[in-house]
This record gives sequence, structure tokens and C-alpha cells, in this order.
Amino acid sequence: MSANKPSIPKGTRDFSPVEMVRRNYIFDTIRQVFRLYSYNPVETPAMENLSTLMGKYGEEGDKLLFKILNSGEYLKGIEPALLEGPDGALLTDINYPRLTNKISEKGLRYDLTVPFARFVVQHRNELQMPFKRYQIQPVWRADRPQKGRYREFYQCDADVVGSDSLVNEIELLQMVDEVFRRLKINVILKLNNRKVLAGIAELIGHPDKIIDITTAIDKLDKIGIENVNAELIERGLSQEAVDKLQPILAISGTVEERLAQLSSLLAPSETGTLGVKELQTVIDGVRALGLAATLDLDVSLARGLNYYTGTIIEVKAADVQIGSISGGGRYDNLTGVFGMPGLSGVGVSFGADRIYDVLLALNLFPAEAKASATTILFANFGTAECARALALAKELRAAGICAEVYPDAVKMKKQMSYADAGEIPFVAIIGESELAEGKVTVKDMTTGQQTSVDADANSIIAIINSSK
Amino acid sequence: MSANKPSIPKGTRDFSPVEMVRRNYIFDTIRQVFRLYSYNPVETPAMENLSTLMGKYGEEGDKLLFKILNSGEYLKGIEPALLEGPDGALLTDINYPRLTNKISEKGLRYDLTVPFARFVVQHRNELQMPFKRYQIQPVWRADRPQKGRYREFYQCDADVVGSDSLVNEIELLQMVDEVFRRLKINVILKLNNRKVLAGIAELIGHPDKIIDITTAIDKLDKIGIENVNAELIERGLSQEAVDKLQPILAISGTVEERLAQLSSLLAPSETGTLGVKELQTVIDGVRALGLAATLDLDVSLARGLNYYTGTIIEVKAADVQIGSISGGGRYDNLTGVFGMPGLSGVGVSFGADRIYDVLLALNLFPAEAKASATTILFANFGTAECARALALAKELRAAGICAEVYPDAVKMKKQMSYADAGEIPFVAIIGESELAEGKVTVKDMTTGQQTSVDADANSIIAIINSSK
Repeated sequence: MSANKPSIPKGTRDFSPVEMVRRNYIFDTIRQVFRLYSYNPVETPAMENLSTLMGKYGEEGDKLLFKILNSGEYLKGIEPALLEGPDGALLTDINYPRLTNKISEKGLRYDLTVPFARFVVQHRNELQMPFKRYQIQPVWRADRPQKGRYREFYQCDADVVGSDSLVNEIELLQMVDEVFRRLKINVILKLNNRKVLAGIAELIGHPDKIIDITTAIDKLDKIGIENVNAELIERGLSQEAVDKLQPILAISGTVEERLAQLSSLLAPSETGTLGVKELQTVIDGVRALGLAATLDLDVSLARGLNYYTGTIIEVKAADVQIGSISGGGRYDNLTGVFGMPGLSGVGVSFGADRIYDVLLALNLFPAEAKASATTILFANFGTAECARALALAKELRAAGICAEVYPDAVKMKKQMSYADAGEIPFVAIIGESELAEGKVTVKDMTTGQQTSVDADANSIIAIINSSK
Repeated sequence: MSANKPSIPKGTRDFSPVEMVRRNYIFDTIRQVFRLYSYNPVETPAMENLSTLMGKYGEEGDKLLFKILNSGEYLKGIEPALLEGPDGALLTDINYPRLTNKISEKGLRYDLTVPFARFVVQHRNELQMPFKRYQIQPVWRADRPQKGRYREFYQCDADVVGSDSLVNEIELLQMVDEVFRRLKINVILKLNNRKVLAGIAELIGHPDKIIDITTAIDKLDKIGIENVNAELIERGLSQEAVDKLQPILAISGTVEERLAQLSSLLAPSETGTLGVKELQTVIDGVRALGLAATLDLDVSLARGLNYYTGTIIEVKAADVQIGSISGGGRYDNLTGVFGMPGLSGVGVSFGADRIYDVLLALNLFPAEAKASATTILFANFGTAECARALALAKELRAAGICAEVYPDAVKMKKQMSYADAGEIPFVAIIGESELAEGKVTVKDMTTGQQTSVDADANSIIAIINSSK
């Protein structure tokens, strides 16, 4: 063994069979529900042109893109000045964005939303609107890795573009509810509307300070009303504005009661009133259909405020302290940046890594989520015995049973410990005497019970089924 | 619409819903068979350290790796000499490998085999041997894009490490056979053994020329025996060696007959004899179990000769002219390069893109492989009607039926053309009168027949089922 044991880049992960089975349980559940709601699959390339990605995630986002070095002699034809700083010194104070632009033209996708917008514009003539798609693929971010934050992780997005109807919001919320019902995770579905936030800012006379206001009131639960008010003053709001905000922060009661209070308070604002109406329609819609989740109204909910223009959705696990496990909302001009304005979209995204942590914390992964898929392992006692085992395994597989033949005629102890490690429920033994008598001994690894049956698939299947 | 319509990097692809459904049909078939044979899923990161990838695919391969530019000020601390050629001129005749090594430490995986070897060594203490894994993930190569060759494509690999037994080969061949039987593609399974090739080279007195010999005799079908012989002379073989090779090239008859002839001819070579014995064991093994595919012995088959050490497998479609659609073999020292010698592996890989082309050419995709998964679309006639539709759609989904509600109350013509474009088989109509009467009109889009039934899920399901 050489000194330098191989490793993988920090912030990335290998997934072992048991992790894969658990992750696939999450992906499959989400995919099945997406499909039942008629969202259809789409995939886009891992690499996008940097012109597609740059400028879409803010200046910080540009830095967090993984950029692909151009192939071949990537510095050929580069002006030497690009390698110099302002004072002409080589390799000092270089303008990196300018240089990078010359030696890299592709980057790894940072999310699934921008590639989807690019997809819609590029294929506009082939798509039937409204277009409902889901996409489950990894994304890459050169973030500082930390617990629960990775440089490669999967996103699971469902979006519909080309329809303004709130029916989409209602169905997306049902879909979110159904995913978590199937995963047996109790969740709180938090709702807000960007127009409500705009209405609040307008009402208190600071339409320009919508981000400051939202950021501050988002901390209400954590730091209390007095600290929120102090922060608002610090962020440049007048005392009068802060006073006007107090009744909004004080709304209380059920979701419906709070919505009614909000409706009166925001009556002077046209935008705010529209936001309340949209919330009312969505809430009435999902209530009528019935929800497993707890519905909540959260006027401080923003989630990428510059992005959403209507409904804002966030999902929290009720029984585990962890960040949001799903979220989404409506964005009215997704494709405008690619030259196709006026196309409204709304969607939700599931965070597979956090959902994984929640399922693990609550011990909610199904028992079948184990490392080996094998139902029955045929032990290997030599060439002739193994030939019989191979033939039986083939028959069992034809009946849909996951069967495995241990490839080497090594000591039984080793073969048994292989079965144990894989949590394989049955071991079939065909030794010399079994071979001669046309029998097979089936050992139930849970009970330890051994049964001798005729060496045919049906007899073996009968034993497997009887143990269920 | 701006002038610069967005695009994707050359050699990459977007996959539309119908392409995704077809691709998933291939992946799901392969995955199901992998699973039945107890291969368990593993995933590795898209990015590997360049130290893991470099030098594993030859000098040409190193150039074809997509390399990730380091984050931040990637030129900081670089010696200016790295930007100069041998004569000291800036940016001229740069030693690119040396410079690239300084500004890039990660690359995109080029195949699934090297990451798997790295995985096995890195996780050696957690793995139970023999370790059987499958992996279905994209790989990236900066190849010149051309028809059927992409810069991003999926590989579907199954490998077992830690067992020398030929039982693995027999089971892998069964697995390959089963995949193509399920896909309804007639295939020819070509077999060879690296030891046979070594034996031939040894027999004719040129053990060092194994690659030249194989390359030349691989062309037998295309250019004929005389041209092959001429090429062998050109490649430095003696006339005596070429004469000695003739009986081997002349073997004929059934697979079993050719194997017997090969056995006599290679009797003087210990390695060659071992290769023939291995082939015999594998062929007898799969014959005993039964194959849907046609088995063939091809002594010119090499497939990455420097890589395989035993069995070599290649699969060709019988009814379509296309390169190999699957292949594999045994490699005795996969993990040696990562400091873990003596671990034998054997595996197969499926080429999803070529399989896709074969299925398309032979019209073998199942009818369900269409753009929309929707079974029934509820047309939208307004708020109250839509509320009824949403409730019924929810019930249908609970019964596992993929149901969709058109989100906007637009003209029927538009809604119907949406159903047509998605090949949606049923449209449910709840207009004012249906709503009042508690009815729903279900239109069978294939026959055009309309049926009025009670507005409950069971009545709708009965119509859907009766049309099957």
C-alpha cells in the first residue's frame, strides 16, 4: 500500500450501496409523485457555457462556479497584459474575471433553474406551454465545505412555465405534501407572497427597503420584537415606519385569522391586497383538497427575494431541528435574461441531503434499504455443486428474486460472513450429498432454521415466501 | 428575443421528456438486471483529483480530461517561468502539462473504472470481498464531437473485484444476455482471452509483438488474409512467424470446433493453453445455462489490450450496423496503481447511447415511451369546475393514475391541442352542466368516443380500464 492513499476532492462524496439505496428511496419517492402530477423528466448537461451561468447568481455566485479550463493551448493568443496587474507587474494583482473569461468558456451548473430557463428558451419551438418538467441532477458550488454543505449535491426540481394560474401553486403544494406523506416526515408548509412583502414596505413608506425589512422581521422569533425594531432603525427606517409596522408583526391566531388581519392592514396597498388575495386562493385551494402537512402563514418568509415575484413556499420538518427541506415559489420573468420575456414560472425544489438526514434521525428509512439487494445466496462447494446453484439462481431471477452465487469454493465461514455482512436473509447450501439427492438446504439467516427441499425454484420460493 | 439565442457546449446534449423516458427505459432495464444478479449501486463524484485521473488513460487521455480551474487567485505563487517557453519568451511554447498542474487540481471523470478502483482502495476496510458494484453515471471526454460521439455520455458498468473465479464471467455473460433479451435486441456475444493472444504471440516467436499481431489480425474480415500477412511483415514479424500464424487464422467451424483446434495449436504454450481452458470453462458454463444471444469466439478481439488480462467480451447488435454496444473483461491488477496490488476484477459496460440508436433503428422502444406520462387531462372551464377537477385528480393519483389538471381556463381548442401534443389518451370534461349534474364527460382521444359518467374516481377508472 503506497503512502498516498487515494482521496476525493473536499466537499464531494462517494456513495456506498446502503447510502445509494437510501438516496434512491428518496429520489424514487419524489420522482413517482412528480410523475403522478404529470411533471415530465428533462436533463441538461453538467457543463454549461459560462455566458449562460455568469451574472445569474450575483458576484459571489460567479466566484462559486466551477470553471472548466479550455482544452489545448489555452493561453495561446492571450494578451500578456492580462497576466499583469495595474502597475504592470507580472502575476500580481491580476484582473481574474477578465483572465478567466479568456481561458475558460464552460462551467459546471450551479443550480437547475438557470439551465432550465436556458432549456426553455433554446427549445421554445418544440415545447408545448404550459410546460411542466422535473429534473433530478447534481449541481456544483465551490462553497466552503461544512457539515451538511457539499460542493456536489443533487437538486430535485419541479417547475411549470407558461401559466399564471394559481392552480399550479395549489397542485405543487399538494405534491410537496404527498412527497412528505409518503416519506412519513411531518412537515410545516410555510407560505408567503412577495406582493405581501412589497405591500408592507409600501404601506410603511419604504418601498425601496423591502429586503432590509424582510431580513429584520425574519429574526422575530430569535431576537424578539425590540431587537427587530432596533435593527430596522439601524437599517435606515424612520421611527414612524417602524411604528406602522407593529400591527403587521402583531397579527395572531389561526392562518385564516392572520390572513384576515393582514387583509385589513394591507387594504391601502394595491399590491399588498393582491398578494393577500393570492395567498387566500392558494390556501383555500389546498384546504379544500386536504393536507397532511401543517399549513402556516409566515410574512417574514423571503427565500431569495430578488427572484420570486408571487407565492413563496418553504417546508420545515416538524420533528427535527434542521433548515428547510423543500422550498419554491413563483418567478415572473425566469427566461427574460435569455431574451424571452413574459413567461411566468412556478416551482418547488427538494433538498435530498437534508431529507436524508431527517429520515436517518427519525429512523424512517424502510427496512429494505440495506447494502445488499440479495434475497438468497448460494454457497459454493465446488464445480459440480456450483453448476447446480447457477441453474437454480437463474430460475429464481426469472421469478424476480434477487439471487447470488458465491463465486469461489472457499471455507463456509467466509461465505457465511459475506451473507451476514450483506444482511442476506437466506443462504442455499448444495453440498455433495444435496447434489446427489437432488436437494438444497435453505438456511433462514434470521431464525437460523435450516430446511431441506427439492432442488427446484418453486420449492425455494415457497420457503422464502413462508418467512414473510 | 435577443440575438444570442442560448446554447450548450458542443458535444453535450439536452434530453427532452420523450428522450428521457426512452433513456430511462434502457437504464431501468440494465439496473433491474444488475440488481437481480446482486450487483449493488455505488456513485462517485463527478470531480476527481487530477492525481487520480492523470496517467491512467495514456498521454492522449490526459489531454482529453476536462480540468477544473482552481478557485480564487489561481496564478498566485506561480513561478513566472511557467508562463515562458524554453527561450524565455512569455506565453510562447509553454509547457502546458506543467502549468496546468499548478492551476488545476481536479478533473471530470473520464470513465467509471478508474474512479471505481480508487473507491475500492479508499474504502477497502469497509468493503466485503468479493465486492460487486454497478454504477450508472455520466463521464466526460474532451474528444472531437462527431455523430454518435459526445463529450458527456453515460456509462453503465458492473464489476466484481476480489474473486478470480470464472463463475463471475459466466454470470456477467448471463447478465449481458438477459439485458439484451429484455430489450429485445438480438446480439452476438464475442469472446476471447488475453492469454490466448499472449499464447499466439509466444507460439510464433514474437511475445513482444502481441499488440501488432492483434491489431493486424483484427482486420482479417475487412482486408483479407494476404493483406493481413503483408501488414504483419510491415510491423516487423518474420516470414517464419507469419507462416506459423496461418493455421491459427484458419481455424473454422462451430465455436466448440474452433476452440478444439485452438487447443491443439496452442498446446506448446502454457499461457495459451490456460487461456483456451478459461474460454472452455466460460463457454461450457454459459451453454449449460442457456443463452438467447449467439455466442462467438473471436481470437482477434482485444479491446484495450493493455488493460485486460483474461476473458475479453464484446457485444454486437445482430440486426444493426453499429460498433459494439457492450463489452468488458477481466483485469488482474485494477487497484495496483493506487497501491493495492493483487486484486482481480472483471466487469462489463453497456453503451447507453448506442443501445438507444439500436432501439430507435429497430423501432423497439415500448409504446409507453412518450413525452407525457399523463393518462387523463382534466380540461379547465373555470374556478368551480376546476375545483371539482382538482379533487377528482387527487383521487385518481391516489389510485396510481397519472392525472393532470389544465391550469388555465382557456379555449378548449388550446387545451385539446395540449392533450394531443402530449399523446394524452383521455380528456375529462367538467363544464357547467356536468358540474351541476355531478357528472364528468370522458373523451377517449384515440377513438374520439365521449362517455358521461358520475363524477367519482371509480367511474373514471372503469372507463380508462375498459379501453385497454
